[in-house]
Amino acid sequence: MLSLLDLRARIAAGTLTPTGAIDLCRAAIAAREPALRALVTLDAAPAIPETGPLAGIAVGVKDIINSAGLPTQMGSPIYQGWHPRGDAAVVARLKSLGAVALAKTTTTAFASSDPTATVNPHDPGHTPGGSSAGSAAAVGAGMLPLALGTQTAGSVIRPASYCGCAAVKPSFRLIPTVGVKTYSWALDTVGLFAAGVADVAHALALATGRSEIAGAEPGSAPRIGLVRLDFAEAPEPEAETALTRARQAAERAGAQVTDLALPPELAQAWERHRIIQNYEGRLALAWEYDTQAEALPPLVRAHLDAGAAIAPSVYDDARRHAHRARRVFKDLFADYDAILTFSAPGPAPATLASTGDPRFNQLWTLMGVPCVNVPVPGDRLPIGVQVIGRFGDDGRALAVARMIEDALR
Amino acid sequence: MLSLLDLRARIAAGTLTPTGAIDLCRAAIAAREPALRALVTLDAAPAIPETGPLAGIAVGVKDIINSAGLPTQMGSPIYQGWHPRGDAAVVARLKSLGAVALAKTTTTAFASSDPTATVNPHDPGHTPGGSSAGSAAAVGAGMLPLALGTQTAGSVIRPASYCGCAAVKPSFRLIPTVGVKTYSWALDTVGLFAAGVADVAHALALATGRSEIAGAEPGSAPRIGLVRLDFAEAPEPEAETALTRARQAAERAGAQVTDLALPPELAQAWERHRIIQNYEGRLALAWEYDTQAEALPPLVRAHLDAGAAIAPSVYDDARRHAHRARRVFKDLFADYDAILTFSAPGPAPATLASTGDPRFNQLWTLMGVPCVNVPVPGDRLPIGVQVIGRFGDDGRALAVARMIEDALR
Repeated sequence: MLSLLDLRARIAAGTLTPTGAIDLCRAAIAAREPALRALVTLDAAPAIPETGPLAGIAVGVKDIINSAGLPTQMGSPIYQGWHPRGDAAVVARLKSLGAVALAKTTTTAFASSDPTATVNPHDPGHTPGGSSAGSAAAVGAGMLPLALGTQTAGSVIRPASYCGCAAVKPSFRLIPTVGVKTYSWALDTVGLFAAGVADVAHALALATGRSEIAGAEPGSAPRIGLVRLDFAEAPEPEAETALTRARQAAERAGAQVTDLALPPELAQAWERHRIIQNYEGRLALAWEYDTQAEALPPLVRAHLDAGAAIAPSVYDDARRHAHRARRVFKDLFADYDAILTFSAPGPAPATLASTGDPRFNQLWTLMGVPCVNVPVPGDRLPIGVQVIGRFGDDGRALAVARMIEDALR
Repeated sequence: MLSLLDLRARIAAGTLTPTGAIDLCRAAIAAREPALRALVTLDAAPAIPETGPLAGIAVGVKDIINSAGLPTQMGSPIYQGWHPRGDAAVVARLKSLGAVALAKTTTTAFASSDPTATVNPHDPGHTPGGSSAGSAAAVGAGMLPLALGTQTAGSVIRPASYCGCAAVKPSFRLIPTVGVKTYSWALDTVGLFAAGVADVAHALALATGRSEIAGAEPGSAPRIGLVRLDFAEAPEPEAETALTRARQAAERAGAQVTDLALPPELAQAWERHRIIQNYEGRLALAWEYDTQAEALPPLVRAHLDAGAAIAPSVYDDARRHAHRARRVFKDLFADYDAILTFSAPGPAPATLASTGDPRFNQLWTLMGVPCVNVPVPGDRLPIGVQVIGRFGDDGRALAVARMIEDALR
């Protein structure tokens, strides 16, 4: 993979130019993209800034995120050839720091569940995950050092786990969603993919103007709660093994890891995630659903049909459960510095007909808390574990994740 | 003014057709619009549904809200001639009920503070208010029975007060903001303008699929807290008189009205509204600010400059104050059914160089609670009072507002 920090160090040392760094990406894309199919469009002649803290960094932009100059097509023929006027807020921010929005990356239609044409960079018979399929695959394949995704259920952390790269789904609204196609305004969160945890931490600090995120420390002997989410269907053995390895690595690094059974309010909220997602999706995609439902692929259409059948009172009740669970969850952090849990039920499924199951992601998206995927080395197919932090303390979550990543090496 | 309920009753009775109702609007527009300048674009040949609960209802759409078929120009040359692909969620919903998006209405640039060309329908030397200038003026002038606006500080309630129509700024996110240009994701709220409170209640119930909103009752002897917002600069005598009249009307109708001094947490939150608005505005409008700041008019540019100077920690602190104030405010409603307060510091100022002052609106927007403007008849220039409800109880707020409106007649 291409490490953002490594590229930036070489540029700072004068051994690589920003144009040279972009050329490295172009060469990797030429080699891998024909089989990977992770990109929708590629900017053939972008302006390449010579200065700025992200000069030389090529970014992949999920194709539900607006970027000036390239079309934004939402993974749907309804938006074929559509050009937004201007960049999404996060894209404008990255460009202002010197980054190059080199490519749009594949997305399931409207960031829902219908698979894209992208394959897993580690085995083309396996899904890369979704909905941020192209961003995860492009970073995992070493074509790009940074990519943008979004997560409404598990669309950042799960594909990162499947594709073997690091990723962060930050605290809710830490990165603005302005200029990003909405599915669920209560859930949609912009996230980042990069080679390692330090790379995503550096990128998040810059993207948010919050330098303390990259400089955070895990603390000595951080208290980590190991969560198995027993109310969800059990994961596969590979996920159990990865979690055990991560636990042992954390303990070797000095962390105090204890098993943590979540209070019932969190199980109740978890059960209701999909109500909020589907109800808001039906409203957010009203124009598409009302005027050209026949152009929607089957899974997103089924989700929106389900949303149309949800009464406002059921939605309101789900939001109240979520609100209560957030308070309970916040109180938990009096006794823990971070949570360690599964990123996905197992390695990438051996199919291109599904993007996998978000059951180990939905709760954390609904809680709005920072989530980090830490790749766990060892198996042929990648798998990751997930470090979760307190709302607004993304730096601490990333610092604990980095500690575990280091200890796993 | 054109009452939505009256038009719908005539259509239901067979004495008016939907096309006839749209023609009434066209005739009023032909008579008033040349002097009023409330509309940006007009659909010359819209499809007019014959059925649906809003058939025959022409809607004005603030020009930061996407509508298919008409350009959406944000009150800014940066978006000149720009066509979104598709309707905003709220526009799609109204169309699905039979309404016709007949016109885009003027907005200050990006719904900020730089005045539009629109004048007050009651005196062309006075501002119609802003930022939803065209929507308030078009309804106040009797050109349209329904119009959409947005409020980030006071952009729905204040122009409604100045233009003499009813309006509701609903609970935060009760109407989706999907397809609406973002200024502040924590504050932007879609609102409705119509002739009377019953008209806006009916429209809000339909727009949200929540019939209980229109059917709500004020209760016998509702407990109303009269709030003078003493920490804000005092209002003009006309606003004091209107508030006194509204209080007396409420008491005549059986309400128990008591003076209510807000707890200090609310004053602290009120002081910090602008921090959140400016900080988020700077991020939301990053592309416009970074690439063509020279095309921004002076007031919005100054607000964004101010936003660029706010540290993330100051913004975080403001959000914490807002969060705390929401909890305190919620507890207040154990003793009150509604709050009665000023809609604006006075009648529309005698200038076209300012859209007026939102100091009596910002707090309620930040609290996310429903606000209703009730016109108070009597003076040459319109003025309204504001009824405020508990978060999520828009029906009760509208019912109390209707009670006061009836008693004022």
